Amino acid sequence: MGSLGQYQQKHKVTVVGSGNWGTAIAKIVAENTASNPAIFEKDVQMWVYEEKVEISKSSKHYDPASPLCQGPQNLTDVINQTHENIKYLQGIALPKNLIANPSLVDAVRDSTILVFNLPHQFIVNICGQIKGKILPYARGVSCIKGVDVNEEGAHLFSETIGKILGIYCGALSGANIASEVGQEKWSESSIGYDPPHFDSKAPTPARSPSGSTENIVHYEHKDVSGQLSKVKLQALPSEYPPVDHVVLKALFHRPYFHISVVSDVAGVSLGGALKNVVAVAAGWVIGKGWGDNAKAAIMRVGLLEMVKFGERFFGATINTKTFTEESAGVADMITSCSGGRNFRCAKLSVERNQSIEQVEETELNGQKLQGTLTALEVNSFLKKQGLEEEFPLFTAVYRVLQGNMTIDEIPSFIER
Amino acid sequence: MGSLGQYQQKHKVTVVGSGNWGTAIAKIVAENTASNPAIFEKDVQMWVYEEKVEISKSSKHYDPASPLCQGPQNLTDVINQTHENIKYLQGIALPKNLIANPSLVDAVRDSTILVFNLPHQFIVNICGQIKGKILPYARGVSCIKGVDVNEEGAHLFSETIGKILGIYCGALSGANIASEVGQEKWSESSIGYDPPHFDSKAPTPARSPSGSTENIVHYEHKDVSGQLSKVKLQALPSEYPPVDHVVLKALFHRPYFHISVVSDVAGVSLGGALKNVVAVAAGWVIGKGWGDNAKAAIMRVGLLEMVKFGERFFGATINTKTFTEESAGVADMITSCSGGRNFRCAKLSVERNQSIEQVEETELNGQKLQGTLTALEVNSFLKKQGLEEEFPLFTAVYRVLQGNMTIDEIPSFIER
Repeated sequence: MGSLGQYQQKHKVTVVGSGNWGTAIAKIVAENTASNPAIFEKDVQMWVYEEKVEISKSSKHYDPASPLCQGPQNLTDVINQTHENIKYLQGIALPKNLIANPSLVDAVRDSTILVFNLPHQFIVNICGQIKGKILPYARGVSCIKGVDVNEEGAHLFSETIGKILGIYCGALSGANIASEVGQEKWSESSIGYDPPHFDSKAPTPARSPSGSTENIVHYEHKDVSGQLSKVKLQALPSEYPPVDHVVLKALFHRPYFHISVVSDVAGVSLGGALKNVVAVAAGWVIGKGWGDNAKAAIMRVGLLEMVKFGERFFGATINTKTFTEESAGVADMITSCSGGRNFRCAKLSVERNQSIEQVEETELNGQKLQGTLTALEVNSFLKKQGLEEEFPLFTAVYRVLQGNMTIDEIPSFIER
Repeated sequence: MGSLGQYQQKHKVTVVGSGNWGTAIAKIVAENTASNPAIFEKDVQMWVYEEKVEISKSSKHYDPASPLCQGPQNLTDVINQTHENIKYLQGIALPKNLIANPSLVDAVRDSTILVFNLPHQFIVNICGQIKGKILPYARGVSCIKGVDVNEEGAHLFSETIGKILGIYCGALSGANIASEVGQEKWSESSIGYDPPHFDSKAPTPARSPSGSTENIVHYEHKDVSGQLSKVKLQALPSEYPPVDHVVLKALFHRPYFHISVVSDVAGVSLGGALKNVVAVAAGWVIGKGWGDNAKAAIMRVGLLEMVKFGERFFGATINTKTFTEESAGVADMITSCSGGRNFRCAKLSVERNQSIEQVEETELNGQKLQGTLTALEVNSFLKKQGLEEEFPLFTAVYRVLQGNMTIDEIPSFIER
């Protein structure tokens, strides 16, 4: 990274969100800003939705004399003083240069790299609050799993963020469990990042106090439903190291968290959604006692349909190797079919002879399964396109969920 | 299959071998010859290495009055009278048209399709015994898992069979466990079959009593080490339905055993060997308690190296999609990394802090692990080619087995 020393400005990084995955990612990012001082400002802001927490007497942070232990405290104060997110990532020491901030607008101010890590239902609201209050040339990385599929098509969360904020946003997804990443158990992840190119002959603008610049590209973005939207993107001032694959790897790669940066944002995002549909089918098959070979058959067909879905609906903008070679593809599917919640609930639904909704209620404390929801969304889309038969596994999962097919009928339905 | 009724001759099928996998495959084949009378003779011969067995008193076949229950009996007699291979596939009813035959030469006589299913160390001897005693235009399918890798290159068992016998031989491999296939639990498998083409303009020969014919192709076969060998192949007489993908599917596909026939024999065979190396690494990682995501990372890298090994050493004769799309590729690897013996022994070796050889001794009743052996063979080949670094996972497995690397060092060794 020595050659990056030529730049006068360093990137300031903010993580928007502080749940278990948000905190685990913020820990990684803060470790890397500290160890790459030529590229990044050391301190990382993490926006925390403020709430009251109490340090329990059994906590190692408990000290009856400390003001922090006199009744309920702000979560941000506890994080900043104990360097632990005691509510969402217990037992994991956070770097001291990770700063919890209860003010969203203050946390993102002057940051050139924004990392989004929050439940997808909050995207529109949160982005609405910071719109116009971020640097116009900031870049984003969304760590929000999955895609938004409906009858009309599939939309990437990274694109939703980018569109609202007027910035470019890539995506991070892979075979990761927040608590394990927090414990520094080795895993891998993929980043998709492919901003439109600025004309390299045009001078990159110097940074003005207002952040305004002349160097703007307008480009047309075509989503899966064929809808075109005009997107305006401002170049990063030349004082900063360009936000490219090398810089993103420097920000996210750790010895225990191996990152591969690719250009295929859609592939990276899509894998994280479709794998949950496959995991539901894998859970059923194991619940039925059909064994590991039947499960492997389901996963094989699932991977094929993921590739085909990508090819069919994202066309040339997707690289199908993302599904077969990247952590966000095959590896994430394997993990989800090993012990993820979609797999487990589907398996239990067969073993207990209950509907998957009943299992969901008793097992997930009010949380919803992503796999059943995605199966419905994907089907509404496939049905509208008249393509149900080309995706027999996705269609079978939908029909079983609807009560229009039995699990026993799946093998013959997906037969070649 | 109606159009196949035009042929005057039907295929006679023999299964050479009757272990648990041999018997399970013979059961499938006999079910299919019975249900496709336009293509196949109903009776299927199965060569059985004769040995003495005794029907135990707890067996459902036990009848104190039966001559079959008076002391040790020939295994073939027991199979032909009870329609069960009580020694190698217990509790599974075999079709009555599956005939156990203790004479190898008699079993293969006049058969046009020979299915080989025996331990690979017996191939040379068994083929030597039947050389010149089979129909010269017979076709073979090898169900023997894996490939023979040494310092010089990789050789397919199907090619060894074909070369000794002077016939064309394809390969069947997939995510299958004999006992589960015997129980008709649903699984999938792949067949690679791609005989050289005969000139379609030349008249296909009529069958002469001696089986001799004029229609012979000579073709050059190039193996992975670049060695050329001349192979002579005799056309099937025109009275028979051609042995093509349709006929092979008719012979092997069942509602509980889904078959995909492809042209890539090398890919189908190679997957079954290399996956065992990956399974050893996966077992170590789980033994270490690193979790499902670390295992998925190992599998992802393993799949990549399988594809690369195929590309690198079989070149254009291999279709890399076999690894990512077929049962013999990704699905078989997934199963082997879930609970196969290579995975289990590697996991136990970490948990018990023993060498994998010690675990092998206590757990496998004198049988040998395929994964450790293949890791050594693959490494001797990669080392000679100077390519160890291009296959970091395969190399890491070898080095850990040799005591020259620790399991903890694998993640950084395979880091991109």
